[in-house]
Amino acid sequence: MSILDYILGSRKKTANVAKDRLKLILAHEREEGGPDYLPALQEELLTVIAKYIPVDKNNIKVSMERKGDFEVLELNILFPDQH
Amino acid sequence: MSILDYILGSRKKTANVAKDRLKLILAHEREEGGPDYLPALQEELLTVIAKYIPVDKNNIKVSMERKGDFEVLELNILFPDQH
Repeated sequence: MSILDYILGSRKKTANVAKDRLKLILAHEREEGGPDYLPALQEELLTVIAKYIPVDKNNIKVSMERKGDFEVLELNILFPDQH
Repeated sequence: MSILDYILGSRKKTANVAKDRLKLILAHEREEGGPDYLPALQEELLTVIAKYIPVDKNNIKVSMERKGDFEVLELNILFPDQH
């Protein structure tokens, strides 16, 4: 299954109202004892995204998962209504 | 299935050698006729990532998928050997 099919499939059924939304996923597979970039990277990436779209901190859902040397950061950004 | 399980499951079996790698996924659900951010966003996000890790353009695999108003950009970044 492709990443696009996975994301489309996992969209909540309530997401029927067509809204502009952006999902950013960072998956980092670290070597033993390697530095943890994700927290700092998350802030900087959001700053870049905010240059393209009005990002409201209340409309960002952040989730982090870890399994062994693998960590996944997921940012779900809902754009404010433009009309 | 969580995004972490999806990514772990879709890792190529050859990825057995523990290497630092980062996967960035941008999924954008656009309203009809909304602007296309992803190409420009991709370059800027890479510039931010390059501040944290040495990014070699030859070690980045970029893939883009589109289905209707949905597009997914996937960047797979393999870090150069640090030792």
